[in-house]
Amino acid sequence: MLSKEQISEQFRALQLHICQELERIDTQAKFTEDSWQREEGGGGHTRTLAAGKILEKAGVAFSAVHGPVTEAMKKQLGHEGERFFATGVSIVLHPVHPRHPIMHMNVRYFELEDHSYWFGGGIDLTPHYVDLTKAKLFHNSLKTVSEKYSTDFYPKFKEWADRYFYLPHRGESRGVGGIFFDQLDEKSGLSKAQIFNYCLDLGKLFPIVYGQQIEDVKLSKPTQAEHDWQALRRGRYVEFNLLHDRGTKFGIYSGGRTESILMSMPPRANWVYNQEPIDGSEEQKTLSFLRAFHEFC
Amino acid sequence: MLSKEQISEQFRALQLHICQELERIDTQAKFTEDSWQREEGGGGHTRTLAAGKILEKAGVAFSAVHGPVTEAMKKQLGHEGERFFATGVSIVLHPVHPRHPIMHMNVRYFELEDHSYWFGGGIDLTPHYVDLTKAKLFHNSLKTVSEKYSTDFYPKFKEWADRYFYLPHRGESRGVGGIFFDQLDEKSGLSKAQIFNYCLDLGKLFPIVYGQQIEDVKLSKPTQAEHDWQALRRGRYVEFNLLHDRGTKFGIYSGGRTESILMSMPPRANWVYNQEPIDGSEEQKTLSFLRAFHEFC
Repeated sequence: MLSKEQISEQFRALQLHICQELERIDTQAKFTEDSWQREEGGGGHTRTLAAGKILEKAGVAFSAVHGPVTEAMKKQLGHEGERFFATGVSIVLHPVHPRHPIMHMNVRYFELEDHSYWFGGGIDLTPHYVDLTKAKLFHNSLKTVSEKYSTDFYPKFKEWADRYFYLPHRGESRGVGGIFFDQLDEKSGLSKAQIFNYCLDLGKLFPIVYGQQIEDVKLSKPTQAEHDWQALRRGRYVEFNLLHDRGTKFGIYSGGRTESILMSMPPRANWVYNQEPIDGSEEQKTLSFLRAFHEFC
Repeated sequence: MLSKEQISEQFRALQLHICQELERIDTQAKFTEDSWQREEGGGGHTRTLAAGKILEKAGVAFSAVHGPVTEAMKKQLGHEGERFFATGVSIVLHPVHPRHPIMHMNVRYFELEDHSYWFGGGIDLTPHYVDLTKAKLFHNSLKTVSEKYSTDFYPKFKEWADRYFYLPHRGESRGVGGIFFDQLDEKSGLSKAQIFNYCLDLGKLFPIVYGQQIEDVKLSKPTQAEHDWQALRRGRYVEFNLLHDRGTKFGIYSGGRTESILMSMPPRANWVYNQEPIDGSEEQKTLSFLRAFHEFC
């Protein structure tokens, strides 16, 4: 039976693999690592990169923590138990160029001392400018990997992502969605090892998919309009993470390591009162797209 | 007896007065007004200013809304009642220059149909660089106005502000504090008219105090370090408003008008992973100051 130590070791290896691949994609910047410990038990390694050629700011975090189950956890998880163990990898990429997308991933494992466990995860893509071909390519990759495990996964988890990565106060999706799942265990019909392999496969897919997203994108020096729009969409990203993202809120309110949690923040974000893009502009087309749900494959 | 119509009329007049005074201080930019209506009842006038000489972004909002008491309200307010009326004025100023402070104010009135009512409010000052003389001047003005009504108010409301305008996940105060109060009614020993006058006096004080804050501040073209620090402190302002500010969270989660609520966001904010100011720098002195509580008068 797969132990929590094996899972966290392989998540740590996944983090290092992803960083290596992202460095290859960036061609210029390197990740640096901060290791930290948690008073109640466990710790993590937070790897960040700044001022790259492709990536303006990137964070790839690994943690493996344990300790007593707090009241906040009981409330959020709806599970009982005295002590927990949790490990996972989280990634957010904020690219330099407005024509490259923001991309996020998280895979995580949670175990209670009675040995009940579950996996959770998600990948979602947040282009500043929606490119339908690229969005389809992204969804097809997620679908292909998911179907190796279950034909139920992609449609179910895609819909879950549509609900999750949504800003109700804006009436907008954060981006073109992806997949999201939680509390996945043997009730899914898959073994623990199979679900873990699904998480690892998604992790390994992440840098490949990011490479596809930026491949053949014709870049010219960003215009002021592109810069401004990128800054506005980054503002929406901040709003999502601080107002709605469960992981961020849970981490912050439960006294997690702030800098590791908020490594997801963009390097820069702007807010302009009541800004609406010009009719017929590319910005306006992206906004219209984000105001509706879509099927991609 | 002071009616809700009289209160909202005078709050609206207060909004216009404050805008006029802020335009005089800015000398360049003018407020524009957006009027909006709320489906369930009432509406507001949101006045904003951008790209001024002194103020990079300012919002002065008035609203007077009514409708059925929602579940979210019951939870937050701890009061019962079928229908409510609420009116108030909210202000946030984000200055151009890092040596000028961010300043915020809110005064509000809430009434239930059984005619129970209360007032709430707060003013707080968020300098990018703490200037102790200016902080004392600010607190002394609040104390003087408060003492016209009750000698209890300033010490009690100053402490309340210290607790409220605090970022636990950063271990930092948002700024040098100010005053904060809620659920203030006749149990305070003051009549409804007196409490309302206190709110109006605080409102009238706001532009005077802002004028004092920027008076005689020697300005030179901001250095890159000053710009960066301003952007970082603005990031903290975003974190406070989206993670902790009760008004913002209540407004967003209960379906309020997003653009009016988020007019408080800075024009631009930056996040750099794990940034700590250089030892002995002015930025570091401000940060140390924000990591402790202080008495100013």
